[in-house]
Amino acid sequence: MDFDHSAKVQRLRAQLADFMRFYVEPANADWHRDAGAGRYPLPLIERLKSRAFSEELWNLFLPGLGDNDPGQRLSNIEYAPLAEIMGRIHWAPEVFNCSAPDTGNMELLHLSATPAQRAQWLEPLLIGEIRSCFAMSEPDAASSDARNIRTTITRDGDDYVINGRKWFITGALHPNCRVAIVMGVTSEHLEPNSLQRHSMILVPMDTPGLSIARNIPIMHYHSPEGHCEMIFRDVRVPASNLLGEEGKGFKLAQDRLGPGRVHHCMRTIGQCEVALELMCERALERKAFGKHLADFANIQDWIAESRLEIDQARLLVMQAAHRMDRYGNAAARVDVSAIKLVAARLQTRIVDRAMQVFGAMGLTPDTPLSYLWTWGRAMRFLDGPDEVHLRVVSRAEIAKAKTNAGRNASQFVPPSLLMPD
Amino acid sequence: MDFDHSAKVQRLRAQLADFMRFYVEPANADWHRDAGAGRYPLPLIERLKSRAFSEELWNLFLPGLGDNDPGQRLSNIEYAPLAEIMGRIHWAPEVFNCSAPDTGNMELLHLSATPAQRAQWLEPLLIGEIRSCFAMSEPDAASSDARNIRTTITRDGDDYVINGRKWFITGALHPNCRVAIVMGVTSEHLEPNSLQRHSMILVPMDTPGLSIARNIPIMHYHSPEGHCEMIFRDVRVPASNLLGEEGKGFKLAQDRLGPGRVHHCMRTIGQCEVALELMCERALERKAFGKHLADFANIQDWIAESRLEIDQARLLVMQAAHRMDRYGNAAARVDVSAIKLVAARLQTRIVDRAMQVFGAMGLTPDTPLSYLWTWGRAMRFLDGPDEVHLRVVSRAEIAKAKTNAGRNASQFVPPSLLMPD
Amino acid sequence: MDFDHSAKVQRLRAQLADFMRFYVEPANADWHRDAGAGRYPLPLIERLKSRAFSEELWNLFLPGLGDNDPGQRLSNIEYAPLAEIMGRIHWAPEVFNCSAPDTGNMELLHLSATPAQRAQWLEPLLIGEIRSCFAMSEPDAASSDARNIRTTITRDGDDYVINGRKWFITGALHPNCRVAIVMGVTSEHLEPNSLQRHSMILVPMDTPGLSIARNIPIMHYHSPEGHCEMIFRDVRVPASNLLGEEGKGFKLAQDRLGPGRVHHCMRTIGQCEVALELMCERALERKAFGKHLADFANIQDWIAESRLEIDQARLLVMQAAHRMDRYGNAAARVDVSAIKLVAARLQTRIVDRAMQVFGAMGLTPDTPLSYLWTWGRAMRFLDGPDEVHLRVVSRAEIAKAKTNAGRNASQFVPPSLLMPD
Amino acid sequence: MDFDHSAKVQRLRAQLADFMRFYVEPANADWHRDAGAGRYPLPLIERLKSRAFSEELWNLFLPGLGDNDPGQRLSNIEYAPLAEIMGRIHWAPEVFNCSAPDTGNMELLHLSATPAQRAQWLEPLLIGEIRSCFAMSEPDAASSDARNIRTTITRDGDDYVINGRKWFITGALHPNCRVAIVMGVTSEHLEPNSLQRHSMILVPMDTPGLSIARNIPIMHYHSPEGHCEMIFRDVRVPASNLLGEEGKGFKLAQDRLGPGRVHHCMRTIGQCEVALELMCERALERKAFGKHLADFANIQDWIAESRLEIDQARLLVMQAAHRMDRYGNAAARVDVSAIKLVAARLQTRIVDRAMQVFGAMGLTPDTPLSYLWTWGRAMRFLDGPDEVHLRVVSRAEIAKAKTNAGRNASQFVPPSLLMPD
Repeated sequence: MDFDHSAKVQRLRAQLADFMRFYVEPANADWHRDAGAGRYPLPLIERLKSRAFSEELWNLFLPGLGDNDPGQRLSNIEYAPLAEIMGRIHWAPEVFNCSAPDTGNMELLHLSATPAQRAQWLEPLLIGEIRSCFAMSEPDAASSDARNIRTTITRDGDDYVINGRKWFITGALHPNCRVAIVMGVTSEHLEPNSLQRHSMILVPMDTPGLSIARNIPIMHYHSPEGHCEMIFRDVRVPASNLLGEEGKGFKLAQDRLGPGRVHHCMRTIGQCEVALELMCERALERKAFGKHLADFANIQDWIAESRLEIDQARLLVMQAAHRMDRYGNAAARVDVSAIKLVAARLQTRIVDRAMQVFGAMGLTPDTPLSYLWTWGRAMRFLDGPDEVHLRVVSRAEIAKAKTNAGRNASQFVPPSLLMPD
Repeated sequence: MDFDHSAKVQRLRAQLADFMRFYVEPANADWHRDAGAGRYPLPLIERLKSRAFSEELWNLFLPGLGDNDPGQRLSNIEYAPLAEIMGRIHWAPEVFNCSAPDTGNMELLHLSATPAQRAQWLEPLLIGEIRSCFAMSEPDAASSDARNIRTTITRDGDDYVINGRKWFITGALHPNCRVAIVMGVTSEHLEPNSLQRHSMILVPMDTPGLSIARNIPIMHYHSPEGHCEMIFRDVRVPASNLLGEEGKGFKLAQDRLGPGRVHHCMRTIGQCEVALELMCERALERKAFGKHLADFANIQDWIAESRLEIDQARLLVMQAAHRMDRYGNAAARVDVSAIKLVAARLQTRIVDRAMQVFGAMGLTPDTPLSYLWTWGRAMRFLDGPDEVHLRVVSRAEIAKAKTNAGRNASQFVPPSLLMPD
Repeated sequence: MDFDHSAKVQRLRAQLADFMRFYVEPANADWHRDAGAGRYPLPLIERLKSRAFSEELWNLFLPGLGDNDPGQRLSNIEYAPLAEIMGRIHWAPEVFNCSAPDTGNMELLHLSATPAQRAQWLEPLLIGEIRSCFAMSEPDAASSDARNIRTTITRDGDDYVINGRKWFITGALHPNCRVAIVMGVTSEHLEPNSLQRHSMILVPMDTPGLSIARNIPIMHYHSPEGHCEMIFRDVRVPASNLLGEEGKGFKLAQDRLGPGRVHHCMRTIGQCEVALELMCERALERKAFGKHLADFANIQDWIAESRLEIDQARLLVMQAAHRMDRYGNAAARVDVSAIKLVAARLQTRIVDRAMQVFGAMGLTPDTPLSYLWTWGRAMRFLDGPDEVHLRVVSRAEIAKAKTNAGRNASQFVPPSLLMPD
Repeated sequence: MDFDHSAKVQRLRAQLADFMRFYVEPANADWHRDAGAGRYPLPLIERLKSRAFSEELWNLFLPGLGDNDPGQRLSNIEYAPLAEIMGRIHWAPEVFNCSAPDTGNMELLHLSATPAQRAQWLEPLLIGEIRSCFAMSEPDAASSDARNIRTTITRDGDDYVINGRKWFITGALHPNCRVAIVMGVTSEHLEPNSLQRHSMILVPMDTPGLSIARNIPIMHYHSPEGHCEMIFRDVRVPASNLLGEEGKGFKLAQDRLGPGRVHHCMRTIGQCEVALELMCERALERKAFGKHLADFANIQDWIAESRLEIDQARLLVMQAAHRMDRYGNAAARVDVSAIKLVAARLQTRIVDRAMQVFGAMGLTPDTPLSYLWTWGRAMRFLDGPDEVHLRVVSRAEIAKAKTNAGRNASQFVPPSLLMPD
């Protein structure tokens, strides 16, 4: 066991932290002004992207990139600590071409795109020319069980025709978003519990019949780039747009979600660190009853609990990354549920404490806390609600217990110690 | 970063787990019967010790042992996973000569004993011939600040004379316990906050004036080997019994406590795993309202939460062990407070859930749960109450924030977004 | 609504509090010494009983007592605040002939005893001449569903013959305990879910075949008066010992449990007040880092949270008492589950905080806290585990929601606000 | 003690609930559409006000109204259950002229207005012709200690001149809002801890120098009626606008806050009931893994816990109302801190559970939950952050302990039980 980062990762962390400090943080105010005013595409983003590209802080993930593709080819355990740093400012990952859902989509295309799909979509994504979205969740299907998804992808001659309604589609309003990866039913005749009923398909955003019904406010927050409700009405695309084979939708989703969740979780860790830093700074500045808040033992406890919780969560995420790298995504399935649970709940808990230290100011847009809380709360549903992941973890544990049954009998004080019957 | 154990540790873990399974667990009923009846020294322990010694599962800790001393010389990160396995049965560590407080005392003697002290006490301890206790806590001194300790160790000619009252002295009633390491004030003239006022001294248990006032029940539990209240009235020992130099008591305590806490914490992790296994087994056996308890979603949630909490805690402890090995005990001071906090609270929380799954049986001695809860509750005071460790962690965090002040300003939405004043 | 006690209750409260202060509290040390040494019957108890009887602080409950029976005939809402005061010292209720399980047993006998049963058992109980126990729980039946009880009560000529094993039978070792009320199956032929399979029967403690297997330690605590495991092997009593009619066991249990739970809960409230008083006193005495514990904001928070929780719990219990008085025990069924839940969890939570303020001393018998915690933990199983009562409360709430379905639709922002489909 | 409402209150509750059901709930969609579009003054509100006025569901609070003033003159304990009903829909109280901050302002004016002030401001408020705001909080003053308020109210000839910045001023953007009650420093020469430095003054909203800097989003929520940041720059009003005497600002604030907090708390209870109803309805409709959510034991537990918490909180609030009515606002000061704490934390906790049952939909404006959570979170700061109220409660408890010191000694097991020293 070794808890230190490799020299390579240490070097990249330092380089990335400097980039954040010298280029991204100073641009934060401008980003909020320009994005809030809808001045897309944002020139500051394009400028920062160029700089990051030239510094080779680009496509930090995706270990298996082709020889000619730009990128660092990092393993999960190498990428995770960088995701933490990028996550500190929510719009920063785009600068390094590491935004969700693009990272996951690039991974998917990398694994299963045909050469034509690759040329049309993956290559522009890899150089940051376009962006993409991932259309899976539906308003009428409990996301706790994705088999409920009922958008249809129906073969019709050389085309597929898509009908359905999707929601919470992140990034769909970004003006560079050119393609959606859509999950739907291709084999309606299979029984509802089948994992072979669904497929994924590439749908250009300008295809007729695809419309954006609304940009859904999340706890009143309107993302400038959208968490959208999208309608697909007789949306027709060539059959060659299918990603992988028919009926492999769940297989693809599974491949895609593991690393993506590690990324999400590490960005969350970064955001929790920001909240804890803000909490400490405010506690050092603000006074009540003649003392700084940092001198009150209850505030100190909040700070300490936050540190303990963040450090434990980070280790759990890093361990999951390690297992994915060494034993494969499938072997780390329960680990991924575990980190998803831990990270999402961590963020609301820690940000809530920070807000309380800020007083009413913590509710306003004058700090990043209201955004961070909101995003944390949304994380408790994204990729499945907490309860689904608790179920995955408990079922794995109970399965272990079944194979182990009776093993603990020796732990018990023997009945012979009881008085005779 | 690497989350896998080395091949050496994997081999030792397998060997130790087999030893526990084939020799220790089957003896558990006998231990309870014999220890409960006070049949000390317990023949079964001596028999198991011989076997462990001959299998070289002996003195698994203490990396710096002398060439002729028996032992594995493992680093903290190598020893910790073995402590987890031994900790599953509370009397098991003695079998491997790895019991508290002997491990810490051996470490202390190894670091600071004179050749004579070494020959008299360390060597018999290393071969498991004698046992020892560590007399630090006092009823009238808040253990949250050890500078309050007021037992006196007064120089009188060639002797020191000890007066005071100690309590919660673990193992003092074990018939093999031959020596106490006693902490007390040697320099009363120094100001109360000084860290140079205290020293440690070796006191044979049969020294006149040393008496055991009572074996203190802990939550009604009477340990057969004692958590004792001890009285020192004009206890006279040769000046050569002083451990290290006068005034170095705190320095020695600090050296001793770090590894000892890692050991405690990993035994706790082992006990939490036992509780979780029992919880799962019971949930698979017991029915209510026509279903197994394992089929109720609330019980499932308890199981999953327990798994998440144990895994995170273990990683935090392992990371602390790593830091002690690589950067020294002093560098890991805050880490050690952190793991002490996390582990102690973990044990009561998880055992409490397991008890609830067992129903009223969980309160009885028919399972190990009541003992495990009690020990976990005591852990929340041993080596300092939770609140002291929260304070250590929060102070470290706030100190970091001070050096970082103003760094986060760029995170804030700029005032220019506000309407003009 | 009126939250003040009646003048009568205020007068009784003052009288009882004085009695506790001047007679019971000063005898506490003696009780522990004598009961600990097993010097039963305890002369101090008999002396205090005489005094309480002569002051008419006797049988404070049981509104429907006969004309010649001694007692105050208080309603539940009048009795509850007195139970709180008596509950502060766990052995005090016996002084006022208000101990569990006698109060519940007297209530049962009052409701359903034949004249002969009344003369033989109720009258001696009402004057405190004898005590009794209540044998319901069984080791092999999940107490979450009492229909699992399988002790048999089999008609054989003019007798019933009882076979089975009971446990956690409180008070069975008290030397004055002369009779057990035993719950068992009289109609084995009825289907397992039937609520008419069980009956209750009076069994004198000296009946051949009745034996006490052990006094079960509860979290290592050995009650001097017993929480016993009892064995019934061919225990034969006259058929006239049946309480009420055959098959009415559950009906009787239901009648008995409501008021008994209010009593338990109010005693719990009294014990929580003791724990909070101790916590405050200790916080005012003990110093750490140069300040009294009472000056640390985290300790202050524990104190405040405890006050908030106790006050809310007391009100909930009083409301349940009110509803039982005004609308009958059946109408208050869900309320009684609610208070059982709230009170049991309250006690462990508050006592745990108090223990933490006391430091390691909080684990010892030098304060009442270890006993109070243990009793609180047991309360989480007595009369059904928490989870059974949560189930009762949630089912009632969900049943309400079913009748209310669709009522809240108007709360929703109308779909017309969405963009057109 | 009596936990039933009086016949009068039962009648009013039924009448009000019918009004809500038949007139207010059906208008909810229109309110959201019109208020969202800024169509103020809202014709539907004026129409509903007329109807409520004619049904005498008007000014339900304010027991001491003048003979000619319209209103029900209810005591706190009578008004509280009606506030619960009105609180279910956040804009409903205005219909009954019971909105915050108008109720508190009317109370203030009723207690201290001159006849001229009364005629100019109280009378139009009582008939619902105008609305008002209350300007106390400041961005640069920790609201935990209102003595930090530093807006100045400086005497200048026959006028007062006001300078300062206020924020979170609720209702300041309502077009009917005609007057602000402003708190500020009139006696700057007094020492900072003095409670006589501040006064309140009436400032018409159209006074030159008064401007609204922004409508502060609260967790991204823009209230159509405003939680505003207001700037006072050389705002000049006649000296006769002072409310009460100079230096009585805190005295007035104290009088005003007690009943206002009871109202807030009971509206909170009403909102928690809405959230619980929604949670149950959704749990009955939505399926996961083939079962309704209402059939999962973890969801059942959330429902039961919510019921327990709401019922306890309601009783605590009602008890505070009772004490204010019977013993005066001053006597209920600690009770008011207690209910403020309990209610604010209740709302976020219960709404959070409901959101989780709704899945991602719980984050959207398609249910009232996101608004209810946000308002609950704000409540944790309004009228002082939680920590200030915890402090009030703990200080009262510790003060009690001081007078009681040593009383519990008898609870302790006597030292004579210990072995001799």
